[in-house]
Amino acid sequence: MKTDVQIAQEATLNPIAAVAEKLGITGEKLELYGNHKAKVSLSVLKENQAKPDGKLVLVTAINPTPAGEGKTTTNVGLSMALNKIGKKTITTLREPSLGPCFGVKGGAAGGGYAQVIPMEDINLHFTGDFHAITSAHSLLAALLDNHLHQGNALQIDLNRIVWRRVVDMNDRALRNITVGQGSKANGVERETGFDITVASEIMAILCLASSLTDLKDRLSRMIVAYDVAGEAVTAKDLEATGAMALLLKDAIKPNLVQTLENTPAFIHGGPFANIAHGCNSVLATKTALKLADYVVTEAGFGADLGAEKFFNIKCRYAELKPNAVVIVATVRALKMNGGIEKTKLSEENVTAVKIGSANLVQHLENLKKFKVPVVVAINKFPTDTEAEFEAIRQACSSEAVNVVLSDVFSQGGEGGVELANEVVKLCEMGPSQFEPLYSLELPLEEKIETIAREIYRADGVIFTPEAKNQLEEIVTLGFDHLPVCMAKTQYSFSDDAALLGAPKDFKIHVKEVRLSAGAGFVVAITGSIMTMPGLPKVPAANGMDITEDGEIIGLS
Amino acid sequence: MKTDVQIAQEATLNPIAAVAEKLGITGEKLELYGNHKAKVSLSVLKENQAKPDGKLVLVTAINPTPAGEGKTTTNVGLSMALNKIGKKTITTLREPSLGPCFGVKGGAAGGGYAQVIPMEDINLHFTGDFHAITSAHSLLAALLDNHLHQGNALQIDLNRIVWRRVVDMNDRALRNITVGQGSKANGVERETGFDITVASEIMAILCLASSLTDLKDRLSRMIVAYDVAGEAVTAKDLEATGAMALLLKDAIKPNLVQTLENTPAFIHGGPFANIAHGCNSVLATKTALKLADYVVTEAGFGADLGAEKFFNIKCRYAELKPNAVVIVATVRALKMNGGIEKTKLSEENVTAVKIGSANLVQHLENLKKFKVPVVVAINKFPTDTEAEFEAIRQACSSEAVNVVLSDVFSQGGEGGVELANEVVKLCEMGPSQFEPLYSLELPLEEKIETIAREIYRADGVIFTPEAKNQLEEIVTLGFDHLPVCMAKTQYSFSDDAALLGAPKDFKIHVKEVRLSAGAGFVVAITGSIMTMPGLPKVPAANGMDITEDGEIIGLS
Repeated sequence: MKTDVQIAQEATLNPIAAVAEKLGITGEKLELYGNHKAKVSLSVLKENQAKPDGKLVLVTAINPTPAGEGKTTTNVGLSMALNKIGKKTITTLREPSLGPCFGVKGGAAGGGYAQVIPMEDINLHFTGDFHAITSAHSLLAALLDNHLHQGNALQIDLNRIVWRRVVDMNDRALRNITVGQGSKANGVERETGFDITVASEIMAILCLASSLTDLKDRLSRMIVAYDVAGEAVTAKDLEATGAMALLLKDAIKPNLVQTLENTPAFIHGGPFANIAHGCNSVLATKTALKLADYVVTEAGFGADLGAEKFFNIKCRYAELKPNAVVIVATVRALKMNGGIEKTKLSEENVTAVKIGSANLVQHLENLKKFKVPVVVAINKFPTDTEAEFEAIRQACSSEAVNVVLSDVFSQGGEGGVELANEVVKLCEMGPSQFEPLYSLELPLEEKIETIAREIYRADGVIFTPEAKNQLEEIVTLGFDHLPVCMAKTQYSFSDDAALLGAPKDFKIHVKEVRLSAGAGFVVAITGSIMTMPGLPKVPAANGMDITEDGEIIGLS
Repeated sequence: MKTDVQIAQEATLNPIAAVAEKLGITGEKLELYGNHKAKVSLSVLKENQAKPDGKLVLVTAINPTPAGEGKTTTNVGLSMALNKIGKKTITTLREPSLGPCFGVKGGAAGGGYAQVIPMEDINLHFTGDFHAITSAHSLLAALLDNHLHQGNALQIDLNRIVWRRVVDMNDRALRNITVGQGSKANGVERETGFDITVASEIMAILCLASSLTDLKDRLSRMIVAYDVAGEAVTAKDLEATGAMALLLKDAIKPNLVQTLENTPAFIHGGPFANIAHGCNSVLATKTALKLADYVVTEAGFGADLGAEKFFNIKCRYAELKPNAVVIVATVRALKMNGGIEKTKLSEENVTAVKIGSANLVQHLENLKKFKVPVVVAINKFPTDTEAEFEAIRQACSSEAVNVVLSDVFSQGGEGGVELANEVVKLCEMGPSQFEPLYSLELPLEEKIETIAREIYRADGVIFTPEAKNQLEEIVTLGFDHLPVCMAKTQYSFSDDAALLGAPKDFKIHVKEVRLSAGAGFVVAITGSIMTMPGLPKVPAANGMDITEDGEIIGLS
């Protein structure tokens, strides 16, 4: 089979203006970025406010393993398949981060015959959204340090500055730094650091904002530091809101591209799935729902993090009513969850599949708690056997959930027709019965405990004294009504990445609690969460090139 | 009179595709960024290689003062006026830097009825070129620190790392920093700092590159550090060239916008005019020369720096043959050069104009040395008087140069017709006789001494021992054939910003010499050159905003 890049380069792209026109987006409402990328005006959503929403389908997955589950591939393939069976469908995805492209992984735009294109642009600067977020974040940091330099009228406590800097690059040397060194003219000396741009609270805000006004409200509430009296100092206090919003005026508009089969794709926003909620933008999802019968969307990591946050944070804030969930698994990843090494995944092993399916089953049980119907999509590999498929079906039978094979990687939309039909069946069962898992009225500890108990199946939650103090302060500041955002390893239901499958008899350890007052959630951090990745011994960048004729090498 | 923003917002813009079509740029050769910005494919230059070049006109100025000379305004207005008198003209300008917009100054897109539009986009992210340069620079920094972290196989001397980081923001706290702090996993601890993006050598390279291949050659030669044996370590040694070029694949393409009168404008690249050469890109200028009868271009700061570097660096590398020079002055700025305070510039003062004109006359004498004919353009202000104009004419009479009044600020192209006619007259005098000031065969010291003597009129050059050592090392490394790039205050012919007019009896002090091996020049630093600006007590950012309807406030 051809490589992803070969397939992408051989694709026949429609002019993006033609893709947009089919959705009714014309004239000033479309801003072209070359012939195959565009931004869609926020007026499209406003003007269609009265129209009923299409059906919303979430694609999520079992706990990821190095074997991969193909969540984005399935999302893209399912969207193409829905179009194939006559349902006008838009796929909505997150934008990939630039930095990691130069490290271990390549891009993130699906795979095989289920990709979004132009993949090289999507993986590089795309329409500049992440650069705009980096600029807005950098501006606030510069205004903060300038405020200190100019006399610190707000009496900011130098030991309690929480606003760091960001850059969209894997640069471990910037994790912990000291700024303001040298002469007094260089500002106030203090320790701080950089995170990668996707970890910026502004990224989360961009993805949760329902309008430019809401964006500004959220930006203004961001806490950058505390003053010597312990009061929060916000972006508003630094008079930074308007300028940041100005920098984000285009970034807030959803980006339109297409799949290999010309299905429209909104790719917009990409918040981290650990310290943030890991979903594409509310504005992209909502706009898509006004323009299509079906909207397929995704959430980062496995369903324990991605789906949980999609439901409890994104759907709650945006008042979305999801109609169906697709949970993606591969035979290979289930074998790894069943204890098999990566080198032996090509050998048939029905027992390992059975054991590993415990992970899938727990996710199925969990998803029921949100009252949204579910289908399992097995993303096919050539080495899979019928006996292994049968083992998955048997494991899922107790949950009364159908298991469907998906072969969109090698067949495109055609390989996802069975899945599409199942999704339509679920969506046509009646109006969405969706409910979040917990009420916002619950105390923050109890929200965290509810997720730990109901989703992770932990015996309890242990808060460090530091975390307890932080929770108390958040209550004092008046933010106890916010949903929680769990920052946990993606590899396990527990907070120990080594515990695969469906672990039992463990506790969740909350080490630290952070307030994202602008985004509107309280982050509970379990384990050590890396917000600035590093580069490997041999970075992918070393193998990249572009020829005088524009041929791109090494970006996959 | 209306404000710049009002005028800009009332303008009737043509679709940029229509502007491009008039230049013969159609189809795949044009990449739209919205309806009023576009990138032009490098193939346009390649396909028109055989066509003769249009006439090249440089707009430069006297030494700048806080009173302003209106160089960009004159450039834009002259271009519109040339079109008005039937000469197909393209204006070429530098892209403004994002960071300074949030500090003291507003944008940089001309003024009054001589602006390029859309000014708000040009002043903000534009087409993302500066972000791409920041990314490429950041990638190289990350690869360098990663190399140290992974064992430093190249034996880089930690005390001789010259590659810093950049961000397009005025952020003084980042001037001097320590990175790699905390645990060993965070890289190697060392002191470094950030410059503003326009100071990146990659910016200078982008502006001097004649093709993607030339860009890669220059990128590969950039020196990032020296090893323990004193040998240069380059971007090529870090295997960073291809990935950086990939990040710059779109940034290298000239941007097309238009003036208020729909004259095509290439706005592309914006290197610092102190540690770099301060001109728009070679590719934009060369492409424009193939598409128009007249191309008007600019160079940063006054003619002692901007024009000198335009001739000795840009024209030499690009084999450009400029046909005429417009030197811009205002009565107000000449009065300041004549010793008058900023508060008294509105009062007629013929004596001060006479004294200040010594600055203008020295520039005129200097420009003759490059064998390109010159015209003086007086950028009119309502408070100017005829007696003051006459004083300027008399001062210039010894140089046999015409002095023309320009009123493009309040009249647009119509106000520049006299200037346009004079420019055409100069350009039609015959083929360009342009010559650089010095031969590349001269030793580096002598190149610097030639500029100091012939342009600044210094009595001599004093090199610090450090600078002498650096020059010796550059010779040892084999780079003595490069042109020099003077980094000097823009406010005086001397290296003392307080010496206005035409100072005599001074020496130039070269404190430090830096090698920009990729860009292809040796930077001689006199005085203290700031490569990372700070924000003022009340940053312009504080007054910026955007409404839900998209109205922009505070960006001017």
